[in-house]
Amino acid sequence: MGAREVGLPETVGGGGLPDRVTIWEVGPRDGLQNESAVVPVATKLEFLDRLADAGAAVLEATSFVHPKWVPQLADAEELLAGLDRRDGVDYPVLVPNERGLERALAAGVRHVAIFASATGTFARRNLNRSLDEQFAMFDPVVARAKAEGLAVRGYVSMCFGDPWEGAVGRDQVVGVGKRLLDMGCDQLSLGDTIGVATPGQVTALLAAFGGVERLAVHFHDTYGQALANTLAALQAGVTTVDSSAGGLGGCPYAESATGNLATEDLVWMLDGLGVAHGVDLDKLADTSAWMAERLGRPSPSRVVRALRG
Amino acid sequence: MGAREVGLPETVGGGGLPDRVTIWEVGPRDGLQNESAVVPVATKLEFLDRLADAGAAVLEATSFVHPKWVPQLADAEELLAGLDRRDGVDYPVLVPNERGLERALAAGVRHVAIFASATGTFARRNLNRSLDEQFAMFDPVVARAKAEGLAVRGYVSMCFGDPWEGAVGRDQVVGVGKRLLDMGCDQLSLGDTIGVATPGQVTALLAAFGGVERLAVHFHDTYGQALANTLAALQAGVTTVDSSAGGLGGCPYAESATGNLATEDLVWMLDGLGVAHGVDLDKLADTSAWMAERLGRPSPSRVVRALRG
Repeated sequence: MGAREVGLPETVGGGGLPDRVTIWEVGPRDGLQNESAVVPVATKLEFLDRLADAGAAVLEATSFVHPKWVPQLADAEELLAGLDRRDGVDYPVLVPNERGLERALAAGVRHVAIFASATGTFARRNLNRSLDEQFAMFDPVVARAKAEGLAVRGYVSMCFGDPWEGAVGRDQVVGVGKRLLDMGCDQLSLGDTIGVATPGQVTALLAAFGGVERLAVHFHDTYGQALANTLAALQAGVTTVDSSAGGLGGCPYAESATGNLATEDLVWMLDGLGVAHGVDLDKLADTSAWMAERLGRPSPSRVVRALRG
Repeated sequence: MGAREVGLPETVGGGGLPDRVTIWEVGPRDGLQNESAVVPVATKLEFLDRLADAGAAVLEATSFVHPKWVPQLADAEELLAGLDRRDGVDYPVLVPNERGLERALAAGVRHVAIFASATGTFARRNLNRSLDEQFAMFDPVVARAKAEGLAVRGYVSMCFGDPWEGAVGRDQVVGVGKRLLDMGCDQLSLGDTIGVATPGQVTALLAAFGGVERLAVHFHDTYGQALANTLAALQAGVTTVDSSAGGLGGCPYAESATGNLATEDLVWMLDGLGVAHGVDLDKLADTSAWMAERLGRPSPSRVVRALRG
């Protein structure tokens, strides 16, 4: 059944929502890096092609993390060499350090993302650095990327809660985020890496930054809160939302951190709200159903299950 | 892992949300009536006991629909005879017609719900009545129930979309709802029976009623929108929210209408927002995990899977 064949109400916007949102599609990177099996590069390339065909504006393509840590994305060079880059589609990649940035530059990348932590424990576990030391690692990466004319995104993980530390102070998150912006990051992606946040916390954190122009949100659906949190972020004026086709992915270093917000579930809401985004839901759901077949398990996206289950 | 052992941020309310919400638990009725296998009455009674132990304030216990149509709840009399009614817990039951009401009265019920449709097609399919004819069926039921001093809820299904008719006009929904209120219903439960609604539509429908004091909402998570829609309803001042323990249930007469909003996912959000409701999340998740075992399949609730998966 096509998405438009069910009994859809007419579009009704909410008060004060943005007219348009950029969906930052993380499935090819954040999704596939969490698969236990390595997906063949040809399948990854077809996934990226299909997502571009479906209208994706931003496709986070891969990561230049050392293959020892993320063997699932060890084919980053091969992937980018084979990628059919479309006009108007942005293909950022994750770079953990200077070595990763060199590899990305050699592969012709024009947009990179670094991955910081809002908490000391996760910085130690994920980066082997203290909360402060992580900046010493990122500083030369961002400086070099900016000198090369690249756009730079700064991910901030564990913004709403940390499985080891519990609650995370908003001041601490804002402090980490502002250091990344001061360093030269063009945008921050505020991550609820373990999916514990609720909408009031989202509203409060965004307000604590004193302006959302350079803020994106990255919600995990571990506790089913991702879309409600996204609504709160949209109501606060956020215009970039991270999501993963079919709900692929999570975080391999945090046990309970399964389930990115599914792009289809986000698209369903944005379509109903009349917020433009450019993605064709039917093509996207076809793509996620196709990828779920390749991965050998059903998509966790409610929309994909309802339309293609 | 207990719900409080993960890294929960502190409670932060949203602007203008209610201080307290009544969770109308529909799992024992709306959930179990959709099971292909009939659940033994002893299991149903233990389910109700456990939900009461977890702090449920309203437990929709069963239905007096003719057993030919809903064999899963053919044990309504036996269930109510065996029910350990707790002080302070309300046990409403569904009654489709005068015969059902007589059975409910004989069983000592003090709160009943009737089930109306916002669309002609669903009234025909579910009730074998036209949109107008359904009122002729309900009128004597509500009159008799009120004369007996019972509280009466009126469900309105297909409020946001209908799988056969598509979009449903807000005027039509308000018209059906107001006829039920004029008839004597104390509360309406506005149902998104096929789960297609998005938050702007919720806000608009609630506004079209011109006051939410007597309105409850009943969202299905078919397209992952239930909790975002609930947030919109809370923001509009709604203080009664229907949900189903573990996300049990759906609607047997509408193919795509699977998945009530899971009570656990709702509770997670309300806890984070600081909205009081009285339910203990750990006990509730234990109950849903226990029921999922009895039903032989995992709970669709994200929270139950994260905490008890």
